[in-house]
Amino acid sequence: MTEKEDNTVFIGKKNIMGYVLAVVTQFNNGANAVEIKARGKTISKAVDVAEIVRNRFMPDVTVEKIEIKTEELMSEDGSKSKVSAIEIKLKR
Amino acid sequence: MTEKEDNTVFIGKKNIMGYVLAVVTQFNNGANAVEIKARGKTISKAVDVAEIVRNRFMPDVTVEKIEIKTEELMSEDGSKSKVSAIEIKLKR
Repeated sequence: MTEKEDNTVFIGKKNIMGYVLAVVTQFNNGANAVEIKARGKTISKAVDVAEIVRNRFMPDVTVEKIEIKTEELMSEDGSKSKVSAIEIKLKR
Repeated sequence: MTEKEDNTVFIGKKNIMGYVLAVVTQFNNGANAVEIKARGKTISKAVDVAEIVRNRFMPDVTVEKIEIKTEELMSEDGSKSKVSAIEIKLKR
């Protein structure tokens, strides 16, 4: 397998522990940094995932950077709406 | 009036624009920094508040620091539970 270029976990509607497992797996596969990305209401879940990874599974992992921003979404009818987003970069 | 020591806005169940107004008011009252704090599901709302303040009302305001952590809550029956929290420090 070739090395994965970017180690990113996008937070969606699945169970929190699924995303925790995804992050832990990426670290265990050799990633030095994993980025957790979320939009809108899933932002809270992204913070939960980062905290659970660090506190319960990988105490050597630290938060390197947290960014917040506003993204523009285009709906099917062409109208635009704005949504907040977060990127949490974990590093070990 | 004496100067307010800490300019903090706690995010709860109220309307987003109420918290946006609270942050803008603190800056307009002379604060150089305002901290937005939230726990659990209101974390997403805290990010919305920070983004709306910056993009719609105060373009000179920047995000100075974002911290995430885990807090322990004690319920009435004495049992403990953990909850994620965020602190977004805005500065101008």
